[in-house]
Amino acid sequence: MIKYPAGTSPKPKGEKIVRRPKNFSSANRGMNLEEDINISNQYYIDKDIAVITKRPTPINIVKVDYSKRAKIVDAYFEKQSTTDYNGVYRGKYIDFEAKSTKLHTSLPLSNITKHQVEHLIRVNKHGGIAFFIIRFEAFDETYLLDARYVIAAFSSNSRKSIPYATIKKEGHIIKKGFIPRLYYLEVVDSLYF
Amino acid sequence: MIKYPAGTSPKPKGEKIVRRPKNFSSANRGMNLEEDINISNQYYIDKDIAVITKRPTPINIVKVDYSKRAKIVDAYFEKQSTTDYNGVYRGKYIDFEAKSTKLHTSLPLSNITKHQVEHLIRVNKHGGIAFFIIRFEAFDETYLLDARYVIAAFSSNSRKSIPYATIKKEGHIIKKGFIPRLYYLEVVDSLYF
Repeated sequence: MIKYPAGTSPKPKGEKIVRRPKNFSSANRGMNLEEDINISNQYYIDKDIAVITKRPTPINIVKVDYSKRAKIVDAYFEKQSTTDYNGVYRGKYIDFEAKSTKLHTSLPLSNITKHQVEHLIRVNKHGGIAFFIIRFEAFDETYLLDARYVIAAFSSNSRKSIPYATIKKEGHIIKKGFIPRLYYLEVVDSLYF
Repeated sequence: MIKYPAGTSPKPKGEKIVRRPKNFSSANRGMNLEEDINISNQYYIDKDIAVITKRPTPINIVKVDYSKRAKIVDAYFEKQSTTDYNGVYRGKYIDFEAKSTKLHTSLPLSNITKHQVEHLIRVNKHGGIAFFIIRFEAFDETYLLDARYVIAAFSSNSRKSIPYATIKKEGHIIKKGFIPRLYYLEVVDSLYF
C-alpha cells in the first residue's frame, strides 16, 4: 500500500519525472492531468476498485551501448498508436485517452491520431468501454466524453476540433478531490453500468 | 490491413527490431515467442477478432537532449510492473505474460516479479482473464497456463520454478500455424467461454 504525502506522486513507469515546484499549493493542484489520473489509478488499485494502468510511452531505440549495463544512448519518443490507459473494472475492459487544452472554446483534435481513433472503434466493437478524459485548464474543468463523440468529430472532414459547448453538453464533469484526484470511475458507473 | 510477407513482421512499438536472417526458413519459424505473439495479435486485430496489444517496454529516462529534436541520450530498460500483453476479446478483459525457456524440465520463476503476480491476482479479482503463454524451446511446444497455477507456484516458498510435467498436465497446448503463428484465442475460447 502506497502512502500519498501531499505534493508527491507515484513515479509513472517509463516517464520522465517533472517535479512540482516546492511552493506547490492546493491552488494549482490538478493542473497536470496525467499526474492526476496516475494518482487516481494507483488509488483505485490500492483500494481494490479497479486495475487501470498507463501504457509506457513507446520509445524508438536507435542505439544501445552494451559495454556496461545496457544503456540506451540514442532513442526518440514515439506517438502511442493505441491510447494511454487501459485496464479492467467490474469485469469490463476500459480504454481511454487523456487530453488537456489551454483553449477556452474547443479541444483541438490535431494531436489525436487516426490509429488511436481506429483503436477506439475496435474497442467498442469488441465490447470494451472507450472514452476520453478532457481537461479545460482555463476553467479547471475535467470531463469524461464517450469515445463515439470523438470518433464522429474526427471522421467529419469539416471539424478539426470539438467545441467546448459540445463537451459540456455531451460530456460528464468529473468530480475532483484530494485522493483520488479525479473520481472518474463514478462517471463510468453512471454511464456504462 | 497489413500484409504479411514471409519472414517479416509488423514493427513492435518501442522495441528494438531484430531482423531475421536472410536464410530464414520454416525450420526455425516460431523460435521467437514475442514475435509470434505480436504477429498473431496483429492478425486478430486485422480480422476483427480481438484487440490485444503489447505494452511498450518501460524505459527509465535519465537524460534528454533538447538541442534538436528531443533525443534520449541516457536511459535504461525497466522491468514491466504489470504484464506484457492486455486487451479485450469477446467483451472480456485479457491480460497475459509470455515466457520462454531453453530448459527441458521446468520454467524458472526467477524473472517473474512480485509486482506481476500481484497484478495478475487483481486482474482475476476484477473479472479479467489472466494467463501465461509458456514456450519450451527444446520441444518447440507452447502452452497456455491459467495464471492461478503461476500465482500458486510463486507464492509457495519451496518452488522457484514450475515443472514441465505440471505445465503439460495443467496447461493447454497452443496450435501453431503460419498466420496467426499461435492460435492462442482458440484455447481462450475453450477455457474461459
